[in-house]
Amino acid sequence: MFEVIWENLRTKNPLVHCITNYVTVNDCANILLACGGSPIMADDAAEVEDITSICSGLNINIGTLNVGTVESMGKAGKRANKLGHPVVLDPVGVGASALRTRTTFDLLEQIQFTVIRGNSSEIKTVAQGSGTTKGVDANIMDATTDDNLDKVILYAKALSQKTGAVIAITGAIDIVADSNKAYVIRNGHPMMSKITGTGCMLSAVIAAACAANPEHVLDATATAVCAMGLCGEAAYQKVLETNGGTATFRVALIDAMSQLDGKTLERGANIESR
Amino acid sequence: MFEVIWENLRTKNPLVHCITNYVTVNDCANILLACGGSPIMADDAAEVEDITSICSGLNINIGTLNVGTVESMGKAGKRANKLGHPVVLDPVGVGASALRTRTTFDLLEQIQFTVIRGNSSEIKTVAQGSGTTKGVDANIMDATTDDNLDKVILYAKALSQKTGAVIAITGAIDIVADSNKAYVIRNGHPMMSKITGTGCMLSAVIAAACAANPEHVLDATATAVCAMGLCGEAAYQKVLETNGGTATFRVALIDAMSQLDGKTLERGANIESR
Amino acid sequence: MFEVIWENLRTKNPLVHCITNYVTVNDCANILLACGGSPIMADDAAEVEDITSICSGLNINIGTLNVGTVESMGKAGKRANKLGHPVVLDPVGVGASALRTRTTFDLLEQIQFTVIRGNSSEIKTVAQGSGTTKGVDANIMDATTDDNLDKVILYAKALSQKTGAVIAITGAIDIVADSNKAYVIRNGHPMMSKITGTGCMLSAVIAAACAANPEHVLDATATAVCAMGLCGEAAYQKVLETNGGTATFRVALIDAMSQLDGKTLERGANIESR
Repeated sequence: MFEVIWENLRTKNPLVHCITNYVTVNDCANILLACGGSPIMADDAAEVEDITSICSGLNINIGTLNVGTVESMGKAGKRANKLGHPVVLDPVGVGASALRTRTTFDLLEQIQFTVIRGNSSEIKTVAQGSGTTKGVDANIMDATTDDNLDKVILYAKALSQKTGAVIAITGAIDIVADSNKAYVIRNGHPMMSKITGTGCMLSAVIAAACAANPEHVLDATATAVCAMGLCGEAAYQKVLETNGGTATFRVALIDAMSQLDGKTLERGANIESR
Repeated sequence: MFEVIWENLRTKNPLVHCITNYVTVNDCANILLACGGSPIMADDAAEVEDITSICSGLNINIGTLNVGTVESMGKAGKRANKLGHPVVLDPVGVGASALRTRTTFDLLEQIQFTVIRGNSSEIKTVAQGSGTTKGVDANIMDATTDDNLDKVILYAKALSQKTGAVIAITGAIDIVADSNKAYVIRNGHPMMSKITGTGCMLSAVIAAACAANPEHVLDATATAVCAMGLCGEAAYQKVLETNGGTATFRVALIDAMSQLDGKTLERGANIESR
Repeated sequence: MFEVIWENLRTKNPLVHCITNYVTVNDCANILLACGGSPIMADDAAEVEDITSICSGLNINIGTLNVGTVESMGKAGKRANKLGHPVVLDPVGVGASALRTRTTFDLLEQIQFTVIRGNSSEIKTVAQGSGTTKGVDANIMDATTDDNLDKVILYAKALSQKTGAVIAITGAIDIVADSNKAYVIRNGHPMMSKITGTGCMLSAVIAAACAANPEHVLDATATAVCAMGLCGEAAYQKVLETNGGTATFRVALIDAMSQLDGKTLERGANIESR
């Protein structure tokens, strides 16, 4: 399954509109090219509807949001919804400021997201804004471990049910779930948290994978998460071989994405479904 | 000729004002330093005239334009014209949104550009906005090949005649033309399209080369195009030697620019004049 | 002393709020992670007070300032002052435009900075805005050399007295001074000026070092300056070994920061106190 999804991404070369932060935007553009997509970044309210119309997916990342880009996110998201394009939300740092939290909740009301990807604490904050969270214990959500895994899976499925979006909670163990099914993914390496942008890059790759596989967004998201994890593993190998540091890791991570093929992905994916 | 132009760039160390997109701005700054120039990025309307006045060249790139920066582009361009500084236009994605197209046409009316650099489709859109395009068949312009080469050359010369700017149409085959003379350049490597920013970086290097050689802007532009192509070739060699991916290519591209000397450039340039 | 400061930084993992330019923002985020801090970039006036409140240090860099971010700098700085967080000012290009100079002087009036870091010419301009500069000869300040070293030290001490901030004047020879004591640091390599962002990155590391060592900001600043210089030296070694260029240098610089331990820093620091 993953192999087909990955080859679709490589072949269809989807153009992905990113409204994203200026910290990691270059990494997002390069990883999109590396995975088989094409990036276009545009965030002025006067052009985002035009731009998203020529794309096949939209990636919204609130990392360095401002008054202008918040308006653009809403406009682009609604247009993408109308066109049936997959829309990914990366609620970077939601909860860290009232602006980020309010913006995230507003976007959740205006836009039907296809995928919401964040770390445990971001997803927890998202959950608080998406209606009542009956039956979901937000307090367990500090980090996914083998001990709380079953609870996190239920939590992710419930949040997917409420939002209609695939939920990706990434960390040492990654959970990708819709309301019926969850994947538990154990690829990746801790060094991924020692460079900026691995989360942002992953969201961009998810957008591309969904744009190339719009009928299989759960599997496309899981594929992207596995792919990024495998690239993290390959990058760490490179660091070991060269006695490198975190910048070498970053170069090697994007290198690995540009070299990853479907067979290697299928073989390397450490994934179980629940 | 190219050797002298390159050594001028290395020696004069021109300060280049860039109003550019936030996706590739770091690459543009680093490639400017690598080629012998110095970068200064500034895009607030309140300071762009001051900043451009202390520089010797201006590079305008509309990659992530917004209402504020569009005003700044106009102000800076007019000031640079008044001061006689070379001004480069990189109309990134013109045609992809009404805002980009309108902005490009407005800039073409307000500012006398020294060089306009884009891919075939961008230049085609530019041509539609620069008066009547009598005698120029825009429809041939999808990509420059050996089959349509003669037509593209005529087209580029005609557009240069109309705009008063050197026209650089870059792709697998690069054309650099003024109204009288065209260069056909066959340096470079397809992997250049697998990282973001090679076009943006090239425009920045063109601005620096023209700033250091203001009396020879056609040759300075051709030199910069050859230089970037040669660096792409060198970077691809590095990728082969190290079994690297696209991020290795990007590092090696900027490395090559920082190491390129005039003699190597003269020797490696695959260029003919028409 | 330096070893303890460095280990504090590695252990405490301070969150540093950066309001910084979009040219080198990715480098700043990555070097913060590499040195042991954590970055958060946020510049909308509606959220900077929230963001700075959850951090333990603030880094203000005017490299690509605009009307919106200038307001944010003031708000964040005042909040950080109220909370007792260290605040670093990097007055990039002050003097190059009226906007940069006015902004810098305004910020100096509104905010008590903990550290001000710039090159000779930037610090000279800062000095002109911070009250009378009696007894301080600004004209000597073109670059710190062995010939003018004593004068620069007096100048830095006097400016620290006036501003209440530690003054870091970086270049071939670095001076770090408060009103009583100055350090002269001779680490680093000229290639550091051939990539963009070494100054910006250093300011970010200073902010992190001060955030982790708020009782010892003079020593923390000197430690950060030595650390960056040592990383420059290590990066140059890597360039020699690999026949690399400036992009290799940049990767190796961040690599070195991620690998630097307190003992190596203590041993490699080329520093004297005056």
